[in-house]
Amino acid sequence: MDAIGRLIRPRSVAVIGASADPSKTSGRPVSYLQKYGFAGEIYPVNPKVENIGGLTCYPDVASLPDVPDVGLVLLGAERAHVAVRELSERGAAAAIVLASGFTETGAEGAERQKQLMQAAGSMRILGPNTIGLVNLTDNIVLSASGALAMDDFPAGSVGLVSQSGGILGSLLSRAAARGVGLSKLVSTSNEADLELADFIDFLAGDSATRVIALYVEAIRNPARFRESVLKARRAGKPIVAFKIGRSEAGAQAAVSHTGALAGSDRMYDALFRQLGVIRAKTFEDLLDIPAILAAGRKLSGRRVAILTSTGGAGTIVSDSLGVAGFATPAPDTETAAQLRSLQSGPQANLDRNPIDVTLAGLQPDLLRAAIRILLASSSYDALVVIAGSSAVGSPSLMADAIHDCLPLSDKPVIAYVSPYAPEVVSVLTRRGVPAYTSAESCAAALDGLLRAVKPEQVQTPTSPLTAADVSDFPAGSLDEAQAKALFARFGISVAEEKVAATAREAEQAARDLGGRVVLKILSREIAHKSDVGGVAVNLTAETIGGRLSAMADEVEAKVGTRPNQFLVQEMVSGGVEIILGMHRDPLGTAILLGMGGVTAELFKDTTMRLLPPDGGLSHAEALAMARDLVTWPLLDGFRGRPKCDVEALAEAIVAFSRMVAQLGDHLVEAEINPVFVLPAGQGVKAADGLVVLDV
Amino acid sequence: MDAIGRLIRPRSVAVIGASADPSKTSGRPVSYLQKYGFAGEIYPVNPKVENIGGLTCYPDVASLPDVPDVGLVLLGAERAHVAVRELSERGAAAAIVLASGFTETGAEGAERQKQLMQAAGSMRILGPNTIGLVNLTDNIVLSASGALAMDDFPAGSVGLVSQSGGILGSLLSRAAARGVGLSKLVSTSNEADLELADFIDFLAGDSATRVIALYVEAIRNPARFRESVLKARRAGKPIVAFKIGRSEAGAQAAVSHTGALAGSDRMYDALFRQLGVIRAKTFEDLLDIPAILAAGRKLSGRRVAILTSTGGAGTIVSDSLGVAGFATPAPDTETAAQLRSLQSGPQANLDRNPIDVTLAGLQPDLLRAAIRILLASSSYDALVVIAGSSAVGSPSLMADAIHDCLPLSDKPVIAYVSPYAPEVVSVLTRRGVPAYTSAESCAAALDGLLRAVKPEQVQTPTSPLTAADVSDFPAGSLDEAQAKALFARFGISVAEEKVAATAREAEQAARDLGGRVVLKILSREIAHKSDVGGVAVNLTAETIGGRLSAMADEVEAKVGTRPNQFLVQEMVSGGVEIILGMHRDPLGTAILLGMGGVTAELFKDTTMRLLPPDGGLSHAEALAMARDLVTWPLLDGFRGRPKCDVEALAEAIVAFSRMVAQLGDHLVEAEINPVFVLPAGQGVKAADGLVVLDV
Repeated sequence: MDAIGRLIRPRSVAVIGASADPSKTSGRPVSYLQKYGFAGEIYPVNPKVENIGGLTCYPDVASLPDVPDVGLVLLGAERAHVAVRELSERGAAAAIVLASGFTETGAEGAERQKQLMQAAGSMRILGPNTIGLVNLTDNIVLSASGALAMDDFPAGSVGLVSQSGGILGSLLSRAAARGVGLSKLVSTSNEADLELADFIDFLAGDSATRVIALYVEAIRNPARFRESVLKARRAGKPIVAFKIGRSEAGAQAAVSHTGALAGSDRMYDALFRQLGVIRAKTFEDLLDIPAILAAGRKLSGRRVAILTSTGGAGTIVSDSLGVAGFATPAPDTETAAQLRSLQSGPQANLDRNPIDVTLAGLQPDLLRAAIRILLASSSYDALVVIAGSSAVGSPSLMADAIHDCLPLSDKPVIAYVSPYAPEVVSVLTRRGVPAYTSAESCAAALDGLLRAVKPEQVQTPTSPLTAADVSDFPAGSLDEAQAKALFARFGISVAEEKVAATAREAEQAARDLGGRVVLKILSREIAHKSDVGGVAVNLTAETIGGRLSAMADEVEAKVGTRPNQFLVQEMVSGGVEIILGMHRDPLGTAILLGMGGVTAELFKDTTMRLLPPDGGLSHAEALAMARDLVTWPLLDGFRGRPKCDVEALAEAIVAFSRMVAQLGDHLVEAEINPVFVLPAGQGVKAADGLVVLDV
Repeated sequence: MDAIGRLIRPRSVAVIGASADPSKTSGRPVSYLQKYGFAGEIYPVNPKVENIGGLTCYPDVASLPDVPDVGLVLLGAERAHVAVRELSERGAAAAIVLASGFTETGAEGAERQKQLMQAAGSMRILGPNTIGLVNLTDNIVLSASGALAMDDFPAGSVGLVSQSGGILGSLLSRAAARGVGLSKLVSTSNEADLELADFIDFLAGDSATRVIALYVEAIRNPARFRESVLKARRAGKPIVAFKIGRSEAGAQAAVSHTGALAGSDRMYDALFRQLGVIRAKTFEDLLDIPAILAAGRKLSGRRVAILTSTGGAGTIVSDSLGVAGFATPAPDTETAAQLRSLQSGPQANLDRNPIDVTLAGLQPDLLRAAIRILLASSSYDALVVIAGSSAVGSPSLMADAIHDCLPLSDKPVIAYVSPYAPEVVSVLTRRGVPAYTSAESCAAALDGLLRAVKPEQVQTPTSPLTAADVSDFPAGSLDEAQAKALFARFGISVAEEKVAATAREAEQAARDLGGRVVLKILSREIAHKSDVGGVAVNLTAETIGGRLSAMADEVEAKVGTRPNQFLVQEMVSGGVEIILGMHRDPLGTAILLGMGGVTAELFKDTTMRLLPPDGGLSHAEALAMARDLVTWPLLDGFRGRPKCDVEALAEAIVAFSRMVAQLGDHLVEAEINPVFVLPAGQGVKAADGLVVLDV
């Protein structure tokens, strides 16, 4: 067994700094180990005490009768490293360090953490500043969390890794109260050594774990995270993540628009989506979604039957499902006829959904029969059963009735509990019917299940990058002509243009290009040309000369220097304007696609994809990006307009992404804004752009 | 005392069809009346029983020793009317009819309901199909809800009216579990007689009620709803409403765009907003928001301090508040210094928010001191205290500490309870600190409180409507020229234009108008001119003749008839395109304002206002509509563009709304699409529109 295996399933545990008083935090771990039935050896270590909870207490690690697999270190930040060194010297597999006062408190704490890691040597460290770990499937509790004072934690198949210690206790008690069974819980906190990816990796191979839930503050090692997630996905285990930071302000405004549109939280969104990690929108959903995934059933569509004996609650659920994009169609003729045969009397109207079977909660046979009909109906992909007040008195009656029907189908069956009735929630969930007290949770759970079935393509291999020489470009900001030349070298189609220094050269350029042209100043210093009067459109060879002089005057008046270079560019029209950019942050490098034009900009209609470790985006990913946009219909022939050349756009996205991948850190910023997507068959044209190189 | 007063506070109650078996639904009401301590007379009525719960049981209503204020009718749908007639004849104030099987089941049931109302005569009816009412402040329970089997319902200041019976029980038990005190609960259900507005009206005058919560399925009488809401608002009582139907598909597509963009749920949104009714977005928020309103504190800004002893939970709350538009700034220098003086030791970092006071939950004095500092700080408008695992063991300790500080300030103080700890939630809420278990609920509550303080202007008086004669317009669809003439008559500025029948007339019209013009077919039958090739832009007197012939050919080919009338219109450019329309449904008549242009249309960027009963919108309301639009910056000089003539737009909205108000039902449809809003000082121009009149 490797070190992480020994950490999670130790045969022996030393508790360094254990107190004999179980009401103290340092008294809890030994008492919890005993309470939860740890089958291995427990070695309390405390020089001032002889006996804790009936166990011999040792004065120090050196005196232990055997090498412990794990040392649980309860000492303060100043002394923890001493125990860690002793444990390492004796050959323990891992130490769990609970003390706070390390990197999370500043420079002094960071120094202490360094000292701690030096003391650990080759021994693994969980923490510091962790609340520890709980292995419910093997009855091993290595934690001081106050939440463990509760009883009755159902073991189950959801493995949970949290980067916050406090949250671990919150999830533990919330899961227990609602009957969601957990397998292992680990709080990684400071991640001085062992991190999120280590435990995802472990859980991917843990037979007791079928679903992995993550509380994420920051992914410190994106490459390892990616590997561990892919391993879990290959093992068929869905991953649900709640990531804080949704409200974070966008990244600092960069020279490009992309910088302002990207932002750290959107990078996480892209990462999770591309890896098939289901992102929980609220903290509640971090249990809501794993609860339904743990039930192991399949959702193959969006049509939901709602079976109720109380009108209002069914309507609330139906409404929330509708908002989330689910359909609640009325029963088909055959299903309605079968339902009608269950009941006599005029009061039930069985032609609508929610399907109101009067008093079903009190009549288990009727409930069973109705569930059977709805599970067999080809009109529905899932079933929500409403538990009303009638279920409160006898929670098992309803739970058993539903449970009996589960083997008849693999469609998901969940429950919405309308009154306050925690036992009903818990009993239903434990009997395989995930139960929710909020209609939004029902919708989030079913949506999560759907996303687990149809993940975004995990990885599309792209052709390997070929070498490209850019040593002929200068370092720093390129001017527009240079930027477009760089784009063109990587296969992106750019607008035709010529550089001109004088009015006469500009006239000649306009004549050469033919038709109407655009005149722009050409400068490596001025990024926002139109702000200084440096752009004029709709010019001809006849008008361009005079306009150039006027432009030179205006720019000189505004910036103090007279421009001496100009760009004469063909005027592109009739296409749809798109922004194509890149964004780098600690999580990786992303490509951003957005609709241009001032209105779309107000709605920030953009989408992002992180680059894979070894190349650019695939054509399919590029197409998917275009389809993500709310304004995709503009490209797709909305209201009888011509369809745009979406294939050419996808090729441009792929080419841009390969340029970004290939140039790596040499490319500091790059953005094409706008690229015009012309009608189908006519391609795309990059009409403006910026590049910052670090050659 | 009026009938509704006698219904809610009866001195005597007859229970018709009472059973001696309290486990039966018909056995509950007498048992509940006794259990909750009804101080008046209870008259069970049942010919087969002599005694129920120690009370004399009467064979029929005629035998009762006195006239009951209220009759609670437990008989089935077939026999209920008999009891109702007898109660009415004896002079009871009201009957509560629990039976289902009336209008909610179809035509036969509707007939029964009619019969029931005839039997009632002048006596008031609550129901049928109701679960009854619960008056917690006077210990009077007139209900058969199973939820009342629970104990310990805290009486409080939230009055609740529900159009669903099942939901009443759900809200009752959920409120009790979390410690939210209710005053009165009424389920109106079928509303054969007494309806939502009757009870809002009653609660507006009920001294025990400070906040009104509504569960709304459909407002059957908008005028009375409006009156009762305004009465409650004048009495200083905020109203929170949860309305089902958010997922409802839009109204059937009408001739106009407005029909598709409006939709019933958006009408409710507009109504609630205009009346200052706070709409609960989720069913949970129907308790979340009243709970904070009942605490009676004032929120005057969006800056929130979060005080925590557990890191993760504070971050979750901070994140959700951020998403909802709240700020969680770090303490100012002075506040930070005061906080720092509370604690020695290096571990606390008090320069950030969430403010982490280590172990505060276990140290009430420290908690009290920190709360005092934060309530006094000029940096914060509200305080969220996080209850972690440490609060579970001694819920009162924390609740008392916070409670002690409440008199020091009127800033709102709420709690987020991180672990599963229902007693902590309940104790805190009962002690005046509304407690929540979801971060989204914290945000919804504070947001609701903010909306209660700053309601949308309830009613702006507008100048009275003057008579306008439109008898010279034909009935049915007007052609474009007629529609614009109608708009112009009501003071809306329209584009200059001339009607032409021939190429020569069109040339003359183009010459008269000068500059470039638009040519359109003029027809009362064809609403979507451009779909049939009936619009051409950018024409001159030289080109219009040929274009007219070509257009006539194309339209003839497409629709089978050759157009014989054309409109030559000045070409409007340089403005922002707006849609201005109207929508009528059972709730009332609304004005819809939306941004035009194809991109804004994809985002459905629109806003609505219902017309007041007696006129059009005010200038201030019209301006507020324009500011509602996401694309408002386009009108307001976004990115150095010229500001548009927003004043002129507001005048056009007011004029349009007065036209709609004045023409009433004669105006079946009306839409201006687009109206161009020109640069400031240049006004607006209606460039196209449609009208359907029913003269």
